[in-house]
Amino acid sequence: YKIVVLPGDGIGPEITQAALDVLEAASSGVFDYELQYEAVGGDGIDQVGDPCPAATIKACSGADAILLGAIGGPKWEEAEKTPEDGLLELRENLGLYANLRPTKVNNSLLDLSPLKKEIAEGTDFMMVRELIGGLYFGRPKYYDDKEAFDTMYYSRENIERIVKTAFDLAASRRKKLTSVDKANVLANSRLWRKIVEEISEDYPEVEVDHLYVDAASMKIITHPTQFDVIVTENLFGDILSDEASVITGSLGMLPSASLSENGPSLYEPIHGSAPDIAGQDKANPMSMIFSVTMMLRMSFEQDALADKIEAACSQVMESGLVTGDLGGRAATSEFVQAVIEAL
Amino acid sequence: YKIVVLPGDGIGPEITQAALDVLEAASSGVFDYELQYEAVGGDGIDQVGDPCPAATIKACSGADAILLGAIGGPKWEEAEKTPEDGLLELRENLGLYANLRPTKVNNSLLDLSPLKKEIAEGTDFMMVRELIGGLYFGRPKYYDDKEAFDTMYYSRENIERIVKTAFDLAASRRKKLTSVDKANVLANSRLWRKIVEEISEDYPEVEVDHLYVDAASMKIITHPTQFDVIVTENLFGDILSDEASVITGSLGMLPSASLSENGPSLYEPIHGSAPDIAGQDKANPMSMIFSVTMMLRMSFEQDALADKIEAACSQVMESGLVTGDLGGRAATSEFVQAVIEAL
Ligand SMILES: CC(C)[C@H](C(=O)O)[C@@H](O)C(=O)O
Ligand SMILES: CC(C)[C@H](C(=O)O)[C@@H](O)C(=O)O
Repeated sequence: YKIVVLPGDGIGPEITQAALDVLEAASSGVFDYELQYEAVGGDGIDQVGDPCPAATIKACSGADAILLGAIGGPKWEEAEKTPEDGLLELRENLGLYANLRPTKVNNSLLDLSPLKKEIAEGTDFMMVRELIGGLYFGRPKYYDDKEAFDTMYYSRENIERIVKTAFDLAASRRKKLTSVDKANVLANSRLWRKIVEEISEDYPEVEVDHLYVDAASMKIITHPTQFDVIVTENLFGDILSDEASVITGSLGMLPSASLSENGPSLYEPIHGSAPDIAGQDKANPMSMIFSVTMMLRMSFEQDALADKIEAACSQVMESGLVTGDLGGRAATSEFVQAVIEAL
Repeated sequence: YKIVVLPGDGIGPEITQAALDVLEAASSGVFDYELQYEAVGGDGIDQVGDPCPAATIKACSGADAILLGAIGGPKWEEAEKTPEDGLLELRENLGLYANLRPTKVNNSLLDLSPLKKEIAEGTDFMMVRELIGGLYFGRPKYYDDKEAFDTMYYSRENIERIVKTAFDLAASRRKKLTSVDKANVLANSRLWRKIVEEISEDYPEVEVDHLYVDAASMKIITHPTQFDVIVTENLFGDILSDEASVITGSLGMLPSASLSENGPSLYEPIHGSAPDIAGQDKANPMSMIFSVTMMLRMSFEQDALADKIEAACSQVMESGLVTGDLGGRAATSEFVQAVIEAL
């Protein structure tokens, strides 16, 4: 199997290396793969003057899976094409239409959640965000000194595709799907809601409800355990998935997967490149390790291997050896060393 | 002074009546006003077949202030023009460009917050939401069976107007303004950010920072005490102000004000019409009472009268006489009676 690795910027390279060290230690004799490193984001600008180099797209297209560290940083904020532009271009070129974000509370970390224990406990839902449509990519998108336009656009096909993905996921879980829209205001949401209703006919076992995005932003905080799968368009998903992530109290541990129709999936932490702690051997590599185990399960059906890695990580964390974001004092390298020994 | 009263739907009429009874008891000999009742929302549909009747707009335009209860309900969901459409039309016609929502945690109600006490305690910020621009009103707005379009549009003038209002407010408070946008993706946000920077030159005493909307949705939950004034466009404000409201743990107590440039302001609770408990003498009238005191302060400079009403309410609530949403058993009417006695 070929895995394309995009370490990116800030803490991206160090957490990527950490996770790959763990993968190497765990997989020998069980799972064979080769790595190909490519540049993206600020790293792409520095290396070849482009945050989404053609060579990177080409390599990704031919891969079986893609791992991305993190992109962005103050150094490239004024670039004509920013690291963020590069990320959007990568998503669009690879057809990564579905972003999946598990929001699962780890009971031993409940103290870190801003929510009361009794509210957060047991939270376990999956956010399915459409990733290459809506206001992000619609045209016209334009501003001058006098006015600005952005266009929220969805075709029926693009709504159907993401909604089906979400129904399939709900059917494989607790069979509850919440579709989030703003159908009392947006034309896009009216079409979205109609299509969700149509497709629900094919999934009689899945219970569906519709929530307005403003109501959803409340319920995610007040009743997070009531969700199983949430599906929504690009911008709503951007806002709500970040909001949801804080429930866990441990941003440094959350992975995500972005799926395409026929090409490879991309796995990455949900957090940014944290330039303030980059290069200091401080970052929590768990988000990247979980991105790797998500890849093992979803792209390679290596569930046993993923379980083994996750068990080793749990063992180390339960021993109290954790990084600063979780209240501990372990360096990235110490933590990884301990996981490798536990393996 | 002429106050136009729009009781609306669901619990709207009962909480409006409750608040007006309190106002009457408190104001005699101090503050003279007359009330004019008009229909809006479902009530408008039932009375004259229109959720935003021309007579209502006319009466509101000639008023010194407007009080709105709540609108909407299952009865009118399939209407060609829904109660919500009527509300948007009212906002647009009256030029209500700025929606102000205080998010202030009441320390005696901290137990009701979904957030941990140490996170929520001391929260006191004002959300300033642009109310008549962006995706709500931009054209084209259209869908058929194959695709959908909505347009996010802002003119420079409309951004300047709301941003200035927010700066003025920040200058009168703790002098900190957070502007929320998505400038890494949206053309509208780029223009928005540029204008905020320009206008900040005129307010050297106000400290300004910019947050992406996804980051804001996290920080509102993780660090709510770090905000003073937040300013943002219509849809972001819709989502974030509802999200913020849950911090207080008491939706049934939150008012809002919507300001126009030269016409009257409109005051209303932030919550909906709660058809499930309408007509049962159960609703918490505090959101409407606070809407009235907000009106007294902002439209009539009757701060002493507002203080007097709020003190009487606090006294009653501290005695334990509260409605169900706050964990008590008082009926709306009992609570109001007690407030009037306390006055
Ligand atoms: C960097 C930015 C363009 C991106 C987005 O808005 O999609 C990020 O916030 C994310 O969620 O991956
Ligand atoms: C009813 C709806 C159209 C409205 C809005 O989105 O503005 C409501 O959610 C609000 O915030 O007042």
